Amino acid sequence: MATVPLKDELDIVIPTIRNLDFLEMWRPFFEQYHLIIVQDGDPSKTIKVPDGFDYDLYNRNDINKILGPRASCISFKDSACRCFGYMVSKKKYIFTIDDDCFVAKDPSGKDINALEQHIKNLLCPSTPYFFNTLYDPFRDGADFVRGYPFSLREGVSTAVSHGLWLNIPDYDAPTQLVKPLERNTRYVDTVLTIPKGTLFPMCGMNLAFDRDLIGPAMYFGLMGDGQPIGRYDDMWAGWCCKVICDHLGLGIKTGLPYIYHSKASNPFVNLKKEYNGIFWQEEIIPFFQQMNLSKESTTVQKCYVEMAKQVNEKLGKIDPYFVKLSDAMITWIEAWDELNPPTKDSDKATNAASK
Amino acid sequence: MATVPLKDELDIVIPTIRNLDFLEMWRPFFEQYHLIIVQDGDPSKTIKVPDGFDYDLYNRNDINKILGPRASCISFKDSACRCFGYMVSKKKYIFTIDDDCFVAKDPSGKDINALEQHIKNLLCPSTPYFFNTLYDPFRDGADFVRGYPFSLREGVSTAVSHGLWLNIPDYDAPTQLVKPLERNTRYVDTVLTIPKGTLFPMCGMNLAFDRDLIGPAMYFGLMGDGQPIGRYDDMWAGWCCKVICDHLGLGIKTGLPYIYHSKASNPFVNLKKEYNGIFWQEEIIPFFQQMNLSKESTTVQKCYVEMAKQVNEKLGKIDPYFVKLSDAMITWIEAWDELNPPTKDSDKATNAASK
Repeated sequence: MATVPLKDELDIVIPTIRNLDFLEMWRPFFEQYHLIIVQDGDPSKTIKVPDGFDYDLYNRNDINKILGPRASCISFKDSACRCFGYMVSKKKYIFTIDDDCFVAKDPSGKDINALEQHIKNLLCPSTPYFFNTLYDPFRDGADFVRGYPFSLREGVSTAVSHGLWLNIPDYDAPTQLVKPLERNTRYVDTVLTIPKGTLFPMCGMNLAFDRDLIGPAMYFGLMGDGQPIGRYDDMWAGWCCKVICDHLGLGIKTGLPYIYHSKASNPFVNLKKEYNGIFWQEEIIPFFQQMNLSKESTTVQKCYVEMAKQVNEKLGKIDPYFVKLSDAMITWIEAWDELNPPTKDSDKATNAASK
Repeated sequence: MATVPLKDELDIVIPTIRNLDFLEMWRPFFEQYHLIIVQDGDPSKTIKVPDGFDYDLYNRNDINKILGPRASCISFKDSACRCFGYMVSKKKYIFTIDDDCFVAKDPSGKDINALEQHIKNLLCPSTPYFFNTLYDPFRDGADFVRGYPFSLREGVSTAVSHGLWLNIPDYDAPTQLVKPLERNTRYVDTVLTIPKGTLFPMCGMNLAFDRDLIGPAMYFGLMGDGQPIGRYDDMWAGWCCKVICDHLGLGIKTGLPYIYHSKASNPFVNLKKEYNGIFWQEEIIPFFQQMNLSKESTTVQKCYVEMAKQVNEKLGKIDPYFVKLSDAMITWIEAWDELNPPTKDSDKATNAASK
């Protein structure tokens, strides 16, 4: 049913501070695609990319040059900078992966083509309004079970495909500290839609999305250098995207594909980055769970701007950081619209969003 | 962590119209437990049970004798009659299984002890308020992922464990007709909580629950003989249970364990039973999705009685059947309370419910 799209429909976005030797293992799956490499940290450092890959590399100087003062919305010294790559892409689909993620094997020992599975996920509808107990009904060998309303079987367009990780699981620092030896060895052979109204912790390590459907909401926030928080970039994007997808009638899937996550990051460093987030998320998550977007917010941009205002009003009380983040959200949308001039269809939306 | 409870904590409920040869295969897993066999159809027929099993068998005469006029709430000529077994049990846990379900094998070829997995599911908390991308965080080798709020990590008590089926999937008649050869061969090695606010199609073929927590809501409705609908008994119970679990802060899990479902039922017969349900569910499901139970409904019985009133008021407009069903729901609660006299703790609840 689903086919891997042609080269001109997908970009692979990789944030990094080092040589991209990990690409060797991905060569059979990635070589036909264009890579957008977002170099974090010192821009004078040279990042080596293995021969044969088609890529553009952007360092901090490039980001500053392209965005001017609006570059302030792109994080520095944090992999949150990857969202710059989403903005400069001109493709319909984005796949983003961390540079410590390798090709995983399925239970039969075969290499998993993560990209192909993500595209399958994105090309099949989602089913957010009712749970299907045999999981993704559009997968070969599965269907809607008895009792699934027929009116809901068309599903909705899938905006996000969230993949998982074998070996090192994506744990927070406290869990890493408590369970230093835990490895994820369970291959769960499924994809499912996260139901409407339910939030989830979106990890940016192995993630694909439809830029046309949800791109402007894939902002990874202000993290790293000069900010009181790190490792919440993908979480932030996940909360925002889920609320907007629910509002606009789009779907988010999670499950397959797996990648092999090779190395646990340092839990002590992580704790330092995370501790504010661990505290703040107890208020942020109820904020997103209770958020209502107005009927007038009919596009991703409009939703995002409305959301930014609510962040300012309601989360600004927690810490001045959220006022800054709210401003950055608006700046992000302005920058997005500048780099992605509206088509006739989206004129109104963009005008509203960039005010 | 979880251990299989002793014999005196669980009953196995089996509705049937034939000799229970299928029990031979389950002998190593079931023999230590008490069986409650609910004989459907002609009460003069003798049902043979293999030697060595400890059981009580109830036929229609027994049901009429035990419940008197209230026996009208128990379906006849439909496996919905199984819920009589839930009512006469005195145990904390119920496992119910169809007599065409056999022991399935896991991918390593090992026989699956379905009962043991159900008990594990019921003894571990559920997490209905936020989605965990590595599925059940209480399973060995898994945990809560980064970004999961710490305040929600205790979870809530699990009331229902919904197991799945290899081989013949639980499809409706139209899907059976369209895909007569489809078999479920995918072993998905996971258990997950169905999020709060999300309904699901609960199948009664392979189901376990905590009678103390949710028993009075496990009513399988009026189906079969004299009724305009069949094959919606478990669906009805599932919708009611999910709304009540959400209201009372209880969890429902689905996924493992698998059983091997040996034989597809006749799709033409099924279509005749189902067609009203297929039509009606398009209104029933939104009814349950939008249902609000009052703060005063603090017990399962109170919730169920309140629900019955709403069924009368709102679904009665669809068809007079729902007025009859609403009455039967009240009768069911009265019968439940008669057979299960309230303890001191539940006095108030039961008094309110049986009015």
